[in-house]
Amino acid sequence: MKKIAVLGYGVVGSGTVEVLYKNKEALEKKIGEEYDVKYILDLRDFPDSPYADKFTKNFDDIVNDPEVDIVAEVLGGVQFAYPYVKACLEAGKSVVTSNKELVAAKGAELLRIAREKDVNFFFEASVGGGIPIIRPLNQCLSANEIDEIAGILNGTTNFILTKMIKEGMGFDEALKIAQDLGYAERNPAADVEGHDTCRKICILASLAFGKHVYPDNIHTEGITKITLEDVKYCESMGAVIKLIGYASNKDGKVAVMTCPAVIDGESQLAGVNDVFNAILVKGDATGDVVFYGKGAGKLPTASAVVSDIVIAAKEKSTTRMMSWEDSEQDFIVPTDDVSNRFYVRANAAKADVEALFGEVRYLSRDNAPAGEIAFVTACINEKEFADKCSKIDVIGSIRVLPY
Amino acid sequence: MKKIAVLGYGVVGSGTVEVLYKNKEALEKKIGEEYDVKYILDLRDFPDSPYADKFTKNFDDIVNDPEVDIVAEVLGGVQFAYPYVKACLEAGKSVVTSNKELVAAKGAELLRIAREKDVNFFFEASVGGGIPIIRPLNQCLSANEIDEIAGILNGTTNFILTKMIKEGMGFDEALKIAQDLGYAERNPAADVEGHDTCRKICILASLAFGKHVYPDNIHTEGITKITLEDVKYCESMGAVIKLIGYASNKDGKVAVMTCPAVIDGESQLAGVNDVFNAILVKGDATGDVVFYGKGAGKLPTASAVVSDIVIAAKEKSTTRMMSWEDSEQDFIVPTDDVSNRFYVRANAAKADVEALFGEVRYLSRDNAPAGEIAFVTACINEKEFADKCSKIDVIGSIRVLPY
Repeated sequence: MKKIAVLGYGVVGSGTVEVLYKNKEALEKKIGEEYDVKYILDLRDFPDSPYADKFTKNFDDIVNDPEVDIVAEVLGGVQFAYPYVKACLEAGKSVVTSNKELVAAKGAELLRIAREKDVNFFFEASVGGGIPIIRPLNQCLSANEIDEIAGILNGTTNFILTKMIKEGMGFDEALKIAQDLGYAERNPAADVEGHDTCRKICILASLAFGKHVYPDNIHTEGITKITLEDVKYCESMGAVIKLIGYASNKDGKVAVMTCPAVIDGESQLAGVNDVFNAILVKGDATGDVVFYGKGAGKLPTASAVVSDIVIAAKEKSTTRMMSWEDSEQDFIVPTDDVSNRFYVRANAAKADVEALFGEVRYLSRDNAPAGEIAFVTACINEKEFADKCSKIDVIGSIRVLPY
Repeated sequence: MKKIAVLGYGVVGSGTVEVLYKNKEALEKKIGEEYDVKYILDLRDFPDSPYADKFTKNFDDIVNDPEVDIVAEVLGGVQFAYPYVKACLEAGKSVVTSNKELVAAKGAELLRIAREKDVNFFFEASVGGGIPIIRPLNQCLSANEIDEIAGILNGTTNFILTKMIKEGMGFDEALKIAQDLGYAERNPAADVEGHDTCRKICILASLAFGKHVYPDNIHTEGITKITLEDVKYCESMGAVIKLIGYASNKDGKVAVMTCPAVIDGESQLAGVNDVFNAILVKGDATGDVVFYGKGAGKLPTASAVVSDIVIAAKEKSTTRMMSWEDSEQDFIVPTDDVSNRFYVRANAAKADVEALFGEVRYLSRDNAPAGEIAFVTACINEKEFADKCSKIDVIGSIRVLPY
């Protein structure tokens, strides 16, 4: 009988326990062995829970119990999760986690410890919620050299952008609705400033390219500066604005960025609306593959945690394939060296724009004030673009990405 | 060192050998061991191939060589593939295959032998080409009870339907272009009559529901009767026509069908065009998850074969999870007991239509001849629908599916 401990009884933790018991019979058949949840770690009391006898406030109960085979860490954050996960791995227990902040910050180290101890460290739920992406990227696409990954990785911001695009709603109003519906936190910074997307693209990039990509080294831009005017201009060329995390192989280095992006309306990512996520993977053999589904939520995320538990219960040492090395900063292409096309909205004369940027594509919208223009540049280096923008009155600019 | 044999040097076989050597270093790192292709079985001669020394015309060379660990079967068909794969499994060799006909016809038996011999039998490439679907369905979504699977599983028919929808091209003309481009065979029956889609949905249904679903027991309808008039009527309600294979859990039994279907234009499957495939999986915890990519082609399919080889090389007995039982016919819901909405095109009076079908939704198209009408029924039992259709002059009908 496998004994499981669940660290944290919040939304994902309670969902994990729920799925473990709801589908117990089918899952035990898949594992080939019975299991039980022995501990649930939480500082709060749950006297009315059907699992009341399993709660503990003391982590030592878990790490020191040799009966515990598998630990599901669903606390979130790094402060407690990191020492707890590390201690569990060092004690020879397999760990599965939904904690993207932990994996993005400490993945290389935790994978190394798991390897040394010959236990599993799985994190399917850390990216894309219930969408299978970590294991498919690692196993099913393993015959490919990955050229590029790009994704809509945050449901909250995608919900807000969808409201802006489909209903012409302003950012503040859309954010308020997202908060009322429970999609966005009272303090929405982690979502709307792009940090959540950044952590997830760092995890995918680390896995695809084999070296740890640290969030601190990545250019990260949120959606707070996107306006309805931008949405309308992009609509006039059949494009939409999405918050994209991307990682692209550049001759052995990797360009990684989180930013709002203008993408073609026919793209597979353009039709991803509301709280849905999608991840596009370009492999040298498969071409484009896209994974789509709910990127968050209690049961989708819990189901990914439980699937990891099932695999961890079945096989002990499969970390050999799921791994990456630590890295130096110079593995990442500096943002100044990246080139992209740009959408620009400015108060400027066409002659000045063309003198700076050469041939551009002009866009239009209804009721644009006199003097305002919007255009799309040719592909241009980031630093050069910033220099040129300083010479005219730019209201806003967004990268145009080829997804 | 792992020794590999490849059965068949056609499109997928040569792609498999190509990928195995092109990405050898990276793949050996993933496996943790070196490998080599020891044999390639083909009745033809390839004197100028760089692998000329590996060819054999004698299957016994392979099955009797204890050095061969893994066999990749990419012959296609059942006649030779079935006895060869069976013999290899019985000899204790792991087998990976891209052969949907084989897996759909003999999967339960071959999985049983693999289980008994404690070797792997993998078939990621048999459905969806380079799209990871078999392993995600089996592993990553394993915490879910699967409610439903629906897919665009055949690139050739999707290419033809896309030409009809986007360019107003007739079926015959679109088929000819597909043949000229090499997407369709000279004898296109397996694609356009739906047999290829049927085999693939049978494999997915077997995996999702745990019992073998045999193609012979499944209602299978192709796209040869779809007309431009149907396309236009559906367009008027924002819908498109796609060839769908679906399998749906009905209280422990399974309803499985391959048929053209009218689906909503906003659906994730509606935007899947040209030779692309997509598979929608509805799980009780994850909700809708969609997998999208190239469903065929030399390198996408070969990459799936090679990924299976990598996993088979790494671990010996992982078939415990990837498996299903043999089944009785009564596991499948009879088609007559299924209910659907239907699109109908007929020469009939509205009064007669409404007397038969009750309230319906009428559709329109430009230049419809006098007397022709088109409408969508409420949900109705298949047998009842057929009975009612016999009472008016129906030109054609298509199921309206909720994907």
